Amino acid sequence: MNNEWICQLQNKLNEDQCSMSSSEKYRHSHDESDHVPVEPDLVCFPESTEDVVAIVQIAQQAAIPITPFGAGSGLEGQSIPFKGGISLNFERMNKVIKFSPEDLLITVQPGITRLQLNHLINRHGLQFPIDPGADATIGGMVANNASGTTAVRYGVMRDQVIDLEIVLADGTRLHTGTKAKKSSSGYHLTGLFTGSEGTLGIITEITLKLHGISEHTIAASCTFETPHQCAEAAHMILLSGIPIQRMEFVDAYSISKVNRYGNYGLPEKHSLFFEFAGMKSAVEEEANLAKELIMDMNGENWRVAADSEERAMIWKARHEMAYAYRHQAGMTITGGDVCVPISKLPELIDYARELIVESGLEGGILGHIGDGNFHTAIAYDTTDPKQRLSAEYINEKLAYRAIKLEGTCTGEHGVGLGKMKYQDAEHGAAVAVMKNMKKMLDPSNLLNPGKIFT
Amino acid sequence: MNNEWICQLQNKLNEDQCSMSSSEKYRHSHDESDHVPVEPDLVCFPESTEDVVAIVQIAQQAAIPITPFGAGSGLEGQSIPFKGGISLNFERMNKVIKFSPEDLLITVQPGITRLQLNHLINRHGLQFPIDPGADATIGGMVANNASGTTAVRYGVMRDQVIDLEIVLADGTRLHTGTKAKKSSSGYHLTGLFTGSEGTLGIITEITLKLHGISEHTIAASCTFETPHQCAEAAHMILLSGIPIQRMEFVDAYSISKVNRYGNYGLPEKHSLFFEFAGMKSAVEEEANLAKELIMDMNGENWRVAADSEERAMIWKARHEMAYAYRHQAGMTITGGDVCVPISKLPELIDYARELIVESGLEGGILGHIGDGNFHTAIAYDTTDPKQRLSAEYINEKLAYRAIKLEGTCTGEHGVGLGKMKYQDAEHGAAVAVMKNMKKMLDPSNLLNPGKIFT
Repeated sequence: MNNEWICQLQNKLNEDQCSMSSSEKYRHSHDESDHVPVEPDLVCFPESTEDVVAIVQIAQQAAIPITPFGAGSGLEGQSIPFKGGISLNFERMNKVIKFSPEDLLITVQPGITRLQLNHLINRHGLQFPIDPGADATIGGMVANNASGTTAVRYGVMRDQVIDLEIVLADGTRLHTGTKAKKSSSGYHLTGLFTGSEGTLGIITEITLKLHGISEHTIAASCTFETPHQCAEAAHMILLSGIPIQRMEFVDAYSISKVNRYGNYGLPEKHSLFFEFAGMKSAVEEEANLAKELIMDMNGENWRVAADSEERAMIWKARHEMAYAYRHQAGMTITGGDVCVPISKLPELIDYARELIVESGLEGGILGHIGDGNFHTAIAYDTTDPKQRLSAEYINEKLAYRAIKLEGTCTGEHGVGLGKMKYQDAEHGAAVAVMKNMKKMLDPSNLLNPGKIFT
Repeated sequence: MNNEWICQLQNKLNEDQCSMSSSEKYRHSHDESDHVPVEPDLVCFPESTEDVVAIVQIAQQAAIPITPFGAGSGLEGQSIPFKGGISLNFERMNKVIKFSPEDLLITVQPGITRLQLNHLINRHGLQFPIDPGADATIGGMVANNASGTTAVRYGVMRDQVIDLEIVLADGTRLHTGTKAKKSSSGYHLTGLFTGSEGTLGIITEITLKLHGISEHTIAASCTFETPHQCAEAAHMILLSGIPIQRMEFVDAYSISKVNRYGNYGLPEKHSLFFEFAGMKSAVEEEANLAKELIMDMNGENWRVAADSEERAMIWKARHEMAYAYRHQAGMTITGGDVCVPISKLPELIDYARELIVESGLEGGILGHIGDGNFHTAIAYDTTDPKQRLSAEYINEKLAYRAIKLEGTCTGEHGVGLGKMKYQDAEHGAAVAVMKNMKKMLDPSNLLNPGKIFT
């Protein structure tokens, strides 16, 4: 390998901004998924957009791939440097560029994490509510169009971004939007680069909408006999127009799993978890209305969290579900991320359970039921290739069924390596347009190559 | 002119689907703006996506431009067939393809209008709330990323569209999304085609999110001594987190205008108009809180509409503002559509008034103040070129000032012919990417040519 490009980068950047240590290479070879790790040749730590431009220009001349890396918390291998080259780690680009509480806006660098951001703004009565569970970087969340438990209220990352600074494959620096809340000027590049997983350009600055912290919050939970009933109840709550802040489904199997992992003492039945937030009297009315609806549908164990501690505990339990499955020696998990029109959800959840039972593997179903989005978490023995194939078979069957039900193979995890094979089935003739866009913006295929499209 | 393509179209379509009558040519030569009319050579009335594909293929072979036409209610000349050719009128493609109240979704053809759509769904307790004032077609609203008085609550058209069927310049038919509420799969073509004004592809099907009709609605208004105070009060209301449904500013000048036009008897002062909607007790609490804030800021004439009739009257008055200016023999109006971060609004509104006073022309300021978006309505004598220039000078100064304040030259009217000259100033290096996208998708420049970019 001709390593002149590495020397060029080492000359251009400070010494500590380039690393070829085996520990750094290892750290940047994988994410939180079970996708096969691939090590980069070099890890770069840019400290400014100028650094990113310099790195991109040197990489472009030497035809070296660049794969951006945030917190490494992705679930579809987006940050794995599949074709080697440079892993571009944004941990030093984690500053606030401009905080405008008066405009409910903040401009940040991509390396700041979700919790770091909220820590800075919460004291001003403001929040950035998108919550994928992991403490992902904002850059990673934009790149994958992340969402999570609050999407039912606030939408997805794409709904929160009003401007991006992008460095294109040729080193051009541009802004996709303005700081105005809405615009009908030009083509909507902000939405296009959001969710493009670093394949069209590299995100170096992000302007986000902020939201006020609600005056009052109520968390509640209830149980049902079957997942099907949970899905139907969720559907009714949505149609009722109650403005829920979160509405999550966890099946009995996953509840028992997390109980053993964290000693939560939750009733081990198919459960819905709710959060209502707003002005006090409104929130109380909303929670009561939801309770009535749930009771009408034969829900049980309606429980309102007594205090903020219990509320925090409920959401901690919810976030620990995935870890509860992984927390077994020799086991790893894989999982689906399907999203369908809400009326199709009961059918699809039943189908997922059938597939898991058939496979003989251990697995749970949980998800953002208010959006029609749910995950399977299938545990398998990493040393047993047959188990791995069985687990993957469940993912595949479920993804194709979701697409058939007019849904998507990925509601929030992104395509990365894992969902590439479904792109043709889901997007049909649009795939050619997407590929042409990639070719236009990255003709040498150096930006996160090997992702999204085969 | 070689008219073989006209014969081909006449053969391919039914006789009544093609018109060269002078009345149809005239009807399709202009919109509601003061942009110079241009007549098409032919008006086509497609009845299906297949018709659109056939028309596009024939036009492509003969290198004939196609300009889509909805209700003709645009304000920046988007539907003017600037280079002649075909005006593609969607009035016969106005059907509901699939109504899924259980999923809060509807799939429609582009020619259905906003009021037609609401007429069909309101009886199911559902609404499509985006309200640009005019009874525009849904296709036109998507193409221009329209919004209006309710954007402060529901966002803009782009936030409501989850899937589009598009016919590309080469006749390819594709879907940009699925029927899932959220997705992280592939590139976000839905957002890209929304707002592209028919320049990248022709919209033939639209899937929209629907919303429940609120249980209770309160309309209110108040007045202030200066526009500056109105903007400050609007800003405070936003920061308070009160979930307003509408919040509109109208200056005293425009109020007196519409009073004379419609005999409304509104107090002739700078005014804010509000709407609060949701569950009864919540809405009452919200309206009371807003009133307290307004009083604290020296607002006057707080008035809550006594009944739904008075509420309807208030919004009718608001929508008639533009017509009130135009309703003078020999006069027409032009106007800006700037949008800036909300904290910059007081400054920009003051600047707009200064410009109007300096010009000696008659003009008002009104707009969607909760989004930082406002319009000027400048009346001028069509027979006096000097007045026209003065009016245009106000638009220009205001657009450049908005861009300087990190805002946009058009919050909701779109670029069309009128805002082309600001694209470089607003988008900088991104314009090259947009132009390449246009070239990629429409290499012969036949889809609504002469719009958005010079």
